[in-house]
Parts: sequence; C-alpha cells; structure tokens
Amino acid sequence: MARPFTADDFAARMRRATSACTGAGLSGLIITPGPDLFHLTGYRPVAITERITALVLAPGRDPAVLMPTLERPDVERSPAAGRLTLTDWPDGTDPYPLLASLLPDPAGRYGIADTTWALHLLGLEEVLAQSTYAPLTRALPMLRAVKDEAELARLAAAGEAADRAYGDILQVPFAGRLETEVAADLAASLKRHGHSQVDFTVVGSGPNGANPHHEAGDRRIEPGDTVVLDFGGLLDGYGSDTTRTVHVGADVPIEVRKVHEVVRLAQQTAFEAVRPGVTCQEIDRVARRVITEAGYGEYFIHRTGHGIGTTTHEPPYLVEGETQELVPGMCFSIEPGVYLPGRFGVRIEDIVTVTATGGRRLNNTPHELGIVG
Amino acid sequence: MARPFTADDFAARMRRATSACTGAGLSGLIITPGPDLFHLTGYRPVAITERITALVLAPGRDPAVLMPTLERPDVERSPAAGRLTLTDWPDGTDPYPLLASLLPDPAGRYGIADTTWALHLLGLEEVLAQSTYAPLTRALPMLRAVKDEAELARLAAAGEAADRAYGDILQVPFAGRLETEVAADLAASLKRHGHSQVDFTVVGSGPNGANPHHEAGDRRIEPGDTVVLDFGGLLDGYGSDTTRTVHVGADVPIEVRKVHEVVRLAQQTAFEAVRPGVTCQEIDRVARRVITEAGYGEYFIHRTGHGIGTTTHEPPYLVEGETQELVPGMCFSIEPGVYLPGRFGVRIEDIVTVTATGGRRLNNTPHELGIVG
Repeated sequence: MARPFTADDFAARMRRATSACTGAGLSGLIITPGPDLFHLTGYRPVAITERITALVLAPGRDPAVLMPTLERPDVERSPAAGRLTLTDWPDGTDPYPLLASLLPDPAGRYGIADTTWALHLLGLEEVLAQSTYAPLTRALPMLRAVKDEAELARLAAAGEAADRAYGDILQVPFAGRLETEVAADLAASLKRHGHSQVDFTVVGSGPNGANPHHEAGDRRIEPGDTVVLDFGGLLDGYGSDTTRTVHVGADVPIEVRKVHEVVRLAQQTAFEAVRPGVTCQEIDRVARRVITEAGYGEYFIHRTGHGIGTTTHEPPYLVEGETQELVPGMCFSIEPGVYLPGRFGVRIEDIVTVTATGGRRLNNTPHELGIVG
Repeated sequence: MARPFTADDFAARMRRATSACTGAGLSGLIITPGPDLFHLTGYRPVAITERITALVLAPGRDPAVLMPTLERPDVERSPAAGRLTLTDWPDGTDPYPLLASLLPDPAGRYGIADTTWALHLLGLEEVLAQSTYAPLTRALPMLRAVKDEAELARLAAAGEAADRAYGDILQVPFAGRLETEVAADLAASLKRHGHSQVDFTVVGSGPNGANPHHEAGDRRIEPGDTVVLDFGGLLDGYGSDTTRTVHVGADVPIEVRKVHEVVRLAQQTAFEAVRPGVTCQEIDRVARRVITEAGYGEYFIHRTGHGIGTTTHEPPYLVEGETQELVPGMCFSIEPGVYLPGRFGVRIEDIVTVTATGGRRLNNTPHELGIVG
C-alpha cells in the first residue's frame, strides 16, 4: 500500500494548478466534484448532485471551497480541509452569486472542470455574464497528466492487481457460459485483488468482439470463439485498464493468429516509440502504420490510447491531431485493435508511463493469445 | 416485473418532450446520456465519457442522435433505435459542428440536460455563439416529474423491495459492529430483493446521525445509540429511497422518543397535506411548522423532499421558494429530520405519489422507532 497523500501533497498540487493559471491566460479555476477535485484535495463527496460544490483556485488567493451546508462536515473531514477556506450555502438559497463572489474577477476567464454539470455552468454564466470559461482539459491539459512518484506507485499497484485478475480468468471455464458470467468472474477477481471499484469488464466473444465498445451480454460463449477481455477500475483511487484476447480451445484459426500477431506487433512498436518529446499523435501513427501495412487499417476504428490516473479516461489522448509532446511521468494506454465485423476482434492494451529515456509498462502479463477452456 | 417499455412508449415520451418546447420558448432539446436520455429512449451507454452522445429533439423534425462511431452498435440495439435518425462521429474529428448541424436554428434557445458536461456545452457554445441554453430542469421541470402507470408500477416495486430490506436489517446485530458492516448488509439486502444498483446506504449512529449526509464510517455502533438508516438505489431502472431511525436496545432515552415523535408527526402531517394544486413549498412549510412548533426548527437543516424516478434526486423539490403545484403522478420523498449536533439524529422518509385526491405512499414499513440488538 502506498503511503497516504498528506495535506502537504494536496497543497502542493493546488499551488501548481494555481501557478499554471497565469501562463494559460486564466483568472482562476473552478473545480466541481470529480477526478480533478479528488486529485487536488482528496475530497470525493458521497454523490455528485444538483447541489453545487466547487473549489476555486486563483493566483494570490487562498484555495476556497463552496459547498452545501449539509455537506460541510464531509469537507471538514477531508484530508486538505485545513488548507481550504470553506463557505457553505443552505437549501433554498441561490449558490451561484456566492460562487461568483469567490472569483477574483467578474470579467475573468476561468478554467472549469470538464465534468461540471451544464446546470452549474449556466447558473454561473447567468450571474457572471462578462466572464468566459474553458474546459480544464483544453485550458490546462497537463494538469493531472504528469504523475509524481506516489501516483505512479498507485498506478503500478492497480496494474499488478489487473495482471493477477487476468491470471485468474485464464483458469475459469469459458465454453458454454454467458459473457456476463465471465464478466462477473473478472469483476470479483479485480475486487479480490484490491480494487475498490470496477469500471468495466468487457467480454466480447466471437462477433461481439468486433464491437470495441461491447460490454458483456447474454451471448453464450462457444468453443472456437475469440474473446476480447478489457477490464479495469480503481485501486486506492487510481486506475487500471488492461486488454487481452483469448481463444476458446487450442485449435486457433489461421486468420485469428495472423490478426493477433499484427495487433501484438502494433502494440509493441508503439510502446517502443514512447520517449519524451514524441507527440501523442505520433504514437497513434506508429501503431496505425503497422496495422495498415498488414492490410487491416480500415478495421482499426479507434484512437490508440488515453491517459489514466484518478480516472480511467483522461488526457493525454493518443490520437491524430494531438500534438502534445510526451513528458516523463505521463501515463496512458496503448491499445491498438482490429475488428472484423460479424466475425471477431483482437485488442491488446497495456498502461505505459513515460520515463526519462523511453516507456515502462505498468501491467505485464504476456501478450500471447491466451488459450481458455 | 412490470412489462418492458416499448419503442412506442419511448416515441410517445419524445413527442411529448418535443411538443413542450414551443410553450417553453425553446427551439429544441439537447439530451446527453443520463436519466433524461434513458427516460426518453431507454438508451444508457456503458459509460459517460469525454466522447459526446446527444439526442436532439425539435418541433417538426425526427428525433436524431449523434454518437461516437464506436458506440453506434450500442445505440442501434437500444429499444427506440428504430425511431431515431443516427449520425456518428469518428475519433479524431470535431463532433460539435456536427451536433450544431442537427439543431434547427443557429440562433436558437435550447434546453440542455442538467448533467451535460461543461466540456460539451462549451464546445457547442463555441460553434453556435448565437444560441442560448437553459438547463432542462429549469426550462421543462415537469418533463419527467409526472409518472405514467408503468413508471409508477416500477417505483412501487422499488419501494416494496426497500421495505423488505428494512425488514431484514431489523434482524441483524448492530451493537459492536461498524457502521460500514451494517451498510454492507443493507446493500446486500437491496440487491437480494432485486435492486440492480445501490446508490446509498447511510448508517449514521450516535453523533454521526446528526450529520444528515454522513454515509457510513468506521464508528463502532454502541448499545444506546440512535441510528439513522437511509438507503436506496435502482430496481428495473427506477429508484427507491427510504429512511427509518432505529435504537440499539429497548431502553430509549426520553429525548430520543420525543424527537422521534416530532419527526413522525411532521412526516405524517406533510403527507396528509399532499393533493393536486398544493405547491411544493407548502409541503415543506407544513413539515417545518410541526418541527418548529415543537422547538426543534433550527435543527431541521434541509429541504423536505425531492422527486424520484429514473434518478434518486430530481424535480420536483419540496423546498421554500418552489411554487410548482403538485400534479397527479408526481413522485417525491417526504423526509423531515432533526439533527442535534454531537448527539443524535432522527429522520423518517417515504416516497409518496400524488393521486387525484391526495397522496399514496410507495413504501410502507411502520414509522415507529425500530429496536435493534
């Protein structure tokens, strides 16, 4: 177990975020509950509701939090509470003028958490018609992208737990069972290995594997199926996300072997291209080139990867058009795939962190096509 | 089990929502994934992510859905798919101009789902600078508030399951166990009685009961504790939400008995005030008056209730200032409470639906102070 984050850790993150405002042309940041608030303060409310809670960070000011009166005790118990100025609003009052009063400039430009509800943004726009807003991932895409050592330790622990879950799943029966049953085994295994939350357990068997966003359904898995397994969640607040492809029975058709080898090579080649200074889109291009040259380019229908941290989907995105350069400490998935409609799919995904000289995988089970029974 | 909703049910809901635009001065509605999209189409994506999906409803046009190419097969399998015009956007393209092209007027006024991410609203505001937006619960607060018979049947089934869970929990040991252990029992019981999802299992023992938003912590429950139990989730897509207060041991202090009786009377009096035409704030006032007259007004620190349906928190809100009149088919909680800081709390909550002549409870376990061991 990694050491708990301290009030000092959160204070340092809030200072870094506040300092970043000036360079980005922002008067301040407005952070509602979600992964950014958790990253900056360690506070995660019981539920995200129509009652607004927001952290305001602005140069030259102390961090301030607005919250419903009801939830003040929860904020007071959160790890960075001693570093926050708290203001609460009771039921039946309008919180938006109060939020506006915490902002440094009535005609400012603010970064706002991507996941802030439209309800709240529109409430704020109404009382501060002269201000403008930018989504945090556009205004400060790097804010959470570069992980410190304590965060890397948590991501590595989540990756190791996912490795163990994959080891478990190779031992369970597939043939004759529903996708949802194997998905339940995967979820139980992630929990057994320490995950507090399971975000997804994709079991895409046969033709379902050709839909990259298929979750798990009531299809009964058959001998001879190729099965995509994509699973992850949060352990100690940080994400795991692994994909492996398995085959039911050792008699693997030649095209499955061929496609699997193409995807494996694309994943490995993209991994080897990781180093500081390379752009995100270049990693996508490298993976795509391998698959295109093998004749399957039109069947690789998604981006190559996404960042991971206090969420399982965040910047940086490895996608054409993303010119952000890689920086040591960034963590993201590399997950090329090939999807043959109506037939089968293959995807291989690892979480990779950028080091001073290249990349390091945070999950490490073999890439070979798993054989299950 | 209630009969499944059909494509016709969803088409009727979409028509009703579209018709409501004109009276509300709206050019159309933009509905991203969440309870509104589920209510209108039956579609609930695997995850709500940075990749936008949106239903567009506008008078004189067919319902249209924009979604990531990856998720098109999921939308195609959803129950109302045959009534929707589908447009997908591939990774690496900008979805907001495409969304704008589905809207009827580049300088219109649109209702947008409350929970739409700021990322998406700002993306849309950037390409449609002449349009304005209003949160759906402000623009059309009644859109989901009045439930039809099939929805009432689901809410009643969820309430009955919560009743059974409360019956179970009266049988488990409290003294000497952690709040989180009793909370786990409650969650397991809700699932055993058919809930697909547990949203909250509050166990507020002793002084923790005096924080109405306390969830469940590592406090060990002691003989003589008063314990607030507030639990609910989704069954067949619709919500339950029940609160009862129990005491560990039969030797109940006089003030606990007194406060419990005040809260019980407030809940009953507010329930009896429910009928069509009464305003939401009047129900709040009725409950508050009973508690204030008993001398505990300052300790009733939240609104009296909230709507429930495909979420466990939605309009109508029973709060001072809400002048919306009650209409048959509305469903909401009535949940007065008294919270004595550092000592204990008492809350009693039922889900109530408005009938032609009054109110009907959708959960029905006795209100008396439960005695647990």
